[in-house]
Amino acid sequence: MSNYFDAIPAIKYEGPESTNPLAFKHYNPEEVIMGKTMEDHLRFAACYWHNFCWDGADVFGAGTFNRPWLAGGDPMTQAKAKADAAFSFLEKLGAPYYCFHDVDVAPEGNSVNDYISNFSAMTEVLAHKQEETGMKLLWGTANVFSHPRYMSGAATNPDPAVFARAATQVFHAMNATKQLGGENYVLWGGREGYETLLNTDLKKERQQLGRFMNMVVEHKHKIGFDGLLLIEPKPQEPTKHQYDYDTATVHGFLTEFGLEKEFAVNIEANHATLSGHSFHHEIATAFALGVFGSIDANRGDPQLGWDTDQFPNSVEEMTLICYEILKNGGFTSGGLNFDTKLRRQSIDAEDLFLGHIGGMDTCALGLKKAAALLESEALSSAVEKRYADWNQDFGHQVLNGTMSLEDVANYARNNALDPKPVSGKQEGLENLVNQILYK
Amino acid sequence: MSNYFDAIPAIKYEGPESTNPLAFKHYNPEEVIMGKTMEDHLRFAACYWHNFCWDGADVFGAGTFNRPWLAGGDPMTQAKAKADAAFSFLEKLGAPYYCFHDVDVAPEGNSVNDYISNFSAMTEVLAHKQEETGMKLLWGTANVFSHPRYMSGAATNPDPAVFARAATQVFHAMNATKQLGGENYVLWGGREGYETLLNTDLKKERQQLGRFMNMVVEHKHKIGFDGLLLIEPKPQEPTKHQYDYDTATVHGFLTEFGLEKEFAVNIEANHATLSGHSFHHEIATAFALGVFGSIDANRGDPQLGWDTDQFPNSVEEMTLICYEILKNGGFTSGGLNFDTKLRRQSIDAEDLFLGHIGGMDTCALGLKKAAALLESEALSSAVEKRYADWNQDFGHQVLNGTMSLEDVANYARNNALDPKPVSGKQEGLENLVNQILYK
Amino acid sequence: MSNYFDAIPAIKYEGPESTNPLAFKHYNPEEVIMGKTMEDHLRFAACYWHNFCWDGADVFGAGTFNRPWLAGGDPMTQAKAKADAAFSFLEKLGAPYYCFHDVDVAPEGNSVNDYISNFSAMTEVLAHKQEETGMKLLWGTANVFSHPRYMSGAATNPDPAVFARAATQVFHAMNATKQLGGENYVLWGGREGYETLLNTDLKKERQQLGRFMNMVVEHKHKIGFDGLLLIEPKPQEPTKHQYDYDTATVHGFLTEFGLEKEFAVNIEANHATLSGHSFHHEIATAFALGVFGSIDANRGDPQLGWDTDQFPNSVEEMTLICYEILKNGGFTSGGLNFDTKLRRQSIDAEDLFLGHIGGMDTCALGLKKAAALLESEALSSAVEKRYADWNQDFGHQVLNGTMSLEDVANYARNNALDPKPVSGKQEGLENLVNQILYK
Amino acid sequence: MSNYFDAIPAIKYEGPESTNPLAFKHYNPEEVIMGKTMEDHLRFAACYWHNFCWDGADVFGAGTFNRPWLAGGDPMTQAKAKADAAFSFLEKLGAPYYCFHDVDVAPEGNSVNDYISNFSAMTEVLAHKQEETGMKLLWGTANVFSHPRYMSGAATNPDPAVFARAATQVFHAMNATKQLGGENYVLWGGREGYETLLNTDLKKERQQLGRFMNMVVEHKHKIGFDGLLLIEPKPQEPTKHQYDYDTATVHGFLTEFGLEKEFAVNIEANHATLSGHSFHHEIATAFALGVFGSIDANRGDPQLGWDTDQFPNSVEEMTLICYEILKNGGFTSGGLNFDTKLRRQSIDAEDLFLGHIGGMDTCALGLKKAAALLESEALSSAVEKRYADWNQDFGHQVLNGTMSLEDVANYARNNALDPKPVSGKQEGLENLVNQILYK
Repeated sequence: MSNYFDAIPAIKYEGPESTNPLAFKHYNPEEVIMGKTMEDHLRFAACYWHNFCWDGADVFGAGTFNRPWLAGGDPMTQAKAKADAAFSFLEKLGAPYYCFHDVDVAPEGNSVNDYISNFSAMTEVLAHKQEETGMKLLWGTANVFSHPRYMSGAATNPDPAVFARAATQVFHAMNATKQLGGENYVLWGGREGYETLLNTDLKKERQQLGRFMNMVVEHKHKIGFDGLLLIEPKPQEPTKHQYDYDTATVHGFLTEFGLEKEFAVNIEANHATLSGHSFHHEIATAFALGVFGSIDANRGDPQLGWDTDQFPNSVEEMTLICYEILKNGGFTSGGLNFDTKLRRQSIDAEDLFLGHIGGMDTCALGLKKAAALLESEALSSAVEKRYADWNQDFGHQVLNGTMSLEDVANYARNNALDPKPVSGKQEGLENLVNQILYK
Repeated sequence: MSNYFDAIPAIKYEGPESTNPLAFKHYNPEEVIMGKTMEDHLRFAACYWHNFCWDGADVFGAGTFNRPWLAGGDPMTQAKAKADAAFSFLEKLGAPYYCFHDVDVAPEGNSVNDYISNFSAMTEVLAHKQEETGMKLLWGTANVFSHPRYMSGAATNPDPAVFARAATQVFHAMNATKQLGGENYVLWGGREGYETLLNTDLKKERQQLGRFMNMVVEHKHKIGFDGLLLIEPKPQEPTKHQYDYDTATVHGFLTEFGLEKEFAVNIEANHATLSGHSFHHEIATAFALGVFGSIDANRGDPQLGWDTDQFPNSVEEMTLICYEILKNGGFTSGGLNFDTKLRRQSIDAEDLFLGHIGGMDTCALGLKKAAALLESEALSSAVEKRYADWNQDFGHQVLNGTMSLEDVANYARNNALDPKPVSGKQEGLENLVNQILYK
Repeated sequence: MSNYFDAIPAIKYEGPESTNPLAFKHYNPEEVIMGKTMEDHLRFAACYWHNFCWDGADVFGAGTFNRPWLAGGDPMTQAKAKADAAFSFLEKLGAPYYCFHDVDVAPEGNSVNDYISNFSAMTEVLAHKQEETGMKLLWGTANVFSHPRYMSGAATNPDPAVFARAATQVFHAMNATKQLGGENYVLWGGREGYETLLNTDLKKERQQLGRFMNMVVEHKHKIGFDGLLLIEPKPQEPTKHQYDYDTATVHGFLTEFGLEKEFAVNIEANHATLSGHSFHHEIATAFALGVFGSIDANRGDPQLGWDTDQFPNSVEEMTLICYEILKNGGFTSGGLNFDTKLRRQSIDAEDLFLGHIGGMDTCALGLKKAAALLESEALSSAVEKRYADWNQDFGHQVLNGTMSLEDVANYARNNALDPKPVSGKQEGLENLVNQILYK
Repeated sequence: MSNYFDAIPAIKYEGPESTNPLAFKHYNPEEVIMGKTMEDHLRFAACYWHNFCWDGADVFGAGTFNRPWLAGGDPMTQAKAKADAAFSFLEKLGAPYYCFHDVDVAPEGNSVNDYISNFSAMTEVLAHKQEETGMKLLWGTANVFSHPRYMSGAATNPDPAVFARAATQVFHAMNATKQLGGENYVLWGGREGYETLLNTDLKKERQQLGRFMNMVVEHKHKIGFDGLLLIEPKPQEPTKHQYDYDTATVHGFLTEFGLEKEFAVNIEANHATLSGHSFHHEIATAFALGVFGSIDANRGDPQLGWDTDQFPNSVEEMTLICYEILKNGGFTSGGLNFDTKLRRQSIDAEDLFLGHIGGMDTCALGLKKAAALLESEALSSAVEKRYADWNQDFGHQVLNGTMSLEDVANYARNNALDPKPVSGKQEGLENLVNQILYK
């Protein structure tokens, strides 16, 4: 079963001229960009769920992938076969990290005790695999949205017993993440939202979620987990409305519950676009609000209203993302996780590699172009110059709170202020970016 | 010129069977609903801008309305003719309130001094008109988005001199609002946003806006204005992205700058839907966050991606809006302002009345149905029952912070918790609402 | 197993004041509206797939419904249990029709022969059930999208062998529909589209689909099936783009392949809105193009970008739909099929009834309001008057082709035509509709 | 006034390393790509309306551009000044073509006669300018949507006198286009649609439009105009729904009225995305349906629901567009017109050039990459191979109509067909495209 990927060689960097589809054209892990290797900049991770748990089913049709490790048998045996396949894939791909949900790696069983013992056993298996292969854990998380008990929410469920089951999973998933040297812990509130306001007490559900988040923070400190706690915003799907709608909403929620120093966000490209924002917007907003953490690198389809989780393939977009990250000092403990699904028609073992190779090359090229953009100072100097007057006397006095509204109004009147509009130069700046992209 | 509406009689309540298009079928100002008159519940306002300043132009074509008061002449004479027309309309319509922007009512002139003296003169005219007619001011605001100087923002402009001009307008508009007995003051940040991130310093612009908002609060207290300060969220249009995206985003912004007790929101239906939310969602969220203030009652077109500002005509939707408001105790100083545009083809003087009559009847009927819904307790008792377990011991302990994540996990394990899903009864609740709507 | 619905009584009409959730408030099958019973007007059908084949799973979570007939066992035994449950439900609900896909009712088996014999046996079972209960078949269809072989399309598959398997299913499903007295036959091209243009030959796929449609028409005539052939438009989902995008696109396709007299459309509300149109638009367009056939009555969520298939609950919308249908003479062989899914949280047996009761009452009330609207002539006379000048001399000459472009231009010049805009009266007409809705 | 662009030099090709913002980096008109110069491949045009008639106003604010030729004065003098400015710009830019609406170039006046004489005089001016500068006319069109008389449609107006005024304009605009050697004539039905179905007779309006289109065809043949007649699809805006919704809808309409051989489509990128399609989809569909004509090259904003008409800047997208065009033999009489608006903040004379330079470089680079993609046969051979079985016996028989549905079903049964799914290789093909884009 671990032989599923036997026909695939380890993926190597061969450069832009290579005609080998199973080679990197741009991702050269050891290449140094602005003083750091690509590997250290990009901190790539592959995910357990879409790659090893999903069989290709969609709402309108059955699975198409025929993965041997999903073919049945005793659940724990199957879980181990899945781990074999996963680490075989990960090792050949050459991304240094992976990510998982608790129930991706261990069968849930029929009781709390089953869950705990299965998960504990599989944590040992993963620890061993990590040691064997050198793979590292970017982040762990708990799936508290798939089981029917979570149909009306986990922390925000009308039934406190469901909250307790969710707490159980998060408790063990945090502990396992720490045990495996995970560098972050993620919460995605897939069912923390509502289907209809008719049966929902919005305020109470927010309080439940606020308390849950605080418990998570307290537990982090208690166990000495020193990675980032991350919330992954998503506006809707599966629910009609999710409380972690987008970065600004999450930041507002965190601030309300005194948590804005304790959490950062894990931004997914396709979640950004579903919330009505560009991916770039969400990244820039997270930096502006001081809550940038990590990225789920993927893409949606601009014409489709659901999470297609396709592999990123736009260097044009990824360059702007990498530009924001580089400009702000790069990742700390976060990284670029491919929360990506193959198209349901991409049923070959090879396709799993092709998808990730394309995604990694897109990010690598985005990084190189972003570095060139940053070094050119084309954008940064234009922005600095645009706001330069705010560094003068009047600007300072306005911002530092020494002038009242009336003072400012009087200043305008006394100086007969009649400011002339200045071109925003949008097209010119777009040209500058393109020139660097296509040099 | 004030004769423009001469052919239209004052609009009266004639009941559901009336065949007179120029009569209310459901809005009976003196009818008492749950102990308060309809007039006092609904606090209707008509707006100056769409009704008296807009000539029917759109991006693809010239004005169609031929309003005589827009036909040219000396600006101050024209402003007075407009005020004549406006109050003649308002009086016949019978909504107790109106709303305006500074430059709706007074010509901007060519300098700060012009602006101040024109606005001051017109404020006198309005005061006199209010006295004559009994009309009241629901809220005033300043238009700091139409003039070319604001093309790159007002408070968030890269040029502090533009900030100063905006401050001048807000200063005078707040003062005029107080002078006219206005019950609220509104800020809509139509250009407080960005067109492209390439030329934008998000963080700096947020700080500018935060300082501006604080100045407004300080000024409110200084002049002893005791109405609500309101921010009107809108996600985009005219800019690509506006900072006051939706209620949750505004609440987050307010909290970040320590302003969450000082501002409430003025929610517009069409802005809600442009931000990816239902109108109902925005209202319910504002109440849950404690920032509900007032409403711009209108509707968008579900197939169109811009602000169509049509008159509300869905009783089904308005009933849920009124239900939230009634359930939460009703308006304080806020009200229902019709921020509504006639369709560009609705060019008759009569159409201005038909639009408002339809909107007011829709809200009046929504109020009556909402009262019936509230009195039936159909929804409230279902919601209360759904969350009842949170009022038991374990629920209390979870929420009051005495249990840690580990405690809760142990509780789940020790009690072998295996909660069974409970139906959310969405279809049943929808049926209950419809039964009340169509009894 | 057929006892699943034992606790539910047969659903009866009890009128708007009834407090029994398991009774119709507005659907009174025998009530006569404009000379025909409600039952004959509305021709309600319930569907096999969402009600009896779906277990409540969504992309992010497992099934929640625990339907006993899906609990496993030998496939044919299970299929019979499902039929027992289905007819038990249908009989209690009191809708006169049902609809099915071939593989909803019979297990697909492991070969063409299996498929044929299973389907044939189950067709006998259904025939017997129909006889027993008096239920009728509104339409049959073949599911040529769920099996992995159809992942790249059925008729539009790059592999002609897949086309052949699809033809096999449609052949047998058409025959079974005839055998069961089905009144229509439906084709929904769920995978007839593309995921990416990079691997797609659009023109060839259109030709394949055109040939397939022609085969279906030839077969219909060969077997003497005298119902309507219906195509169900949907813009996307599951594929990125489906060829049967909307009514106008389907009509264009039919015309290109000489099929516009042979097919009509089965319009689904939620498919309409996903394609960027209102439900009303799709219905009105189908009538204007002469291809109206039948309706899948449901609703989407205006904020969600996928097919939520909720039960219709807007009388305001359904009134306009019924108005178009009544105005155009009503259904011929089509009807109102509830292609509707319970919310995943609505897990009680009772919820299946509540959803359908709400939907049926919504349509019944829509019918009554539409009849009142039609009888009032409020809309029809306004429309007639608006276009009246086209019935005069000049209008006739323009339309009948006797005037050239130059003739018309000369006419305008010689008569110095300067037509004055006339109000479209949109708000006034909206008020008229609301007055009838809420009398 | 014609000196407005004096500070701007003629734009030259300087190559990718040039740091001159006022130079082409990739558009080298004489460079030969696949046997034809770039100039002949791309056939660039600039438009009169957005560049020379628009002052930078939007729905929420006044004009920002301060174009001297819009500054007032006698209308004919102004029209000549505008023509001076336009040709001065066009000549410096170096695009070989321009496009215009009748009322862009000549004042409408107060009567049909005014219109005719003004337009005739300005046609002479344009003819002279063309001769002087060597500029050519890609297409002409008539603006039958801006004047209030067209508020309810032109050909589809309820008033036949409005139809006659529209016919007058189209008659003269077609004649002028022929006189000026225009290579195509375009119809954009900006108000040919509806605002509400309540006041609309869809079927009658379609007939009016069908007759109008036929008149246009007859007139084309009568005057011996040998360019293409083009319809420009757009789904909505300004109206709620426009009849020329998208390419497939237009093709269906043309087929219904026997016009599918007489018209092609002029596809605009931003109209494509507003209709729910990718730009690529619309181009590929037009070729598949045999109606590809010309392109309005621009881009929308993926987060905004209105026509932003920004300059194209995605080489990734434009490569696929150019690929379709090259693969299908290139433009005949069509070309790439920039139907593009500067951002309202881009107020410098220079910005008009920067926008067009960026757009032209984007298209030029797209052309080069597309040629490489085509020459590589990477995509074409994959597609050919994917459908290869349709060229075998069984595939032929299916398509040529010799087999019935039953024959095909029997074939499947007799051969026990059990086709295995084959990977669609989407990710692999996307990687191939990116490799060529970023070599």
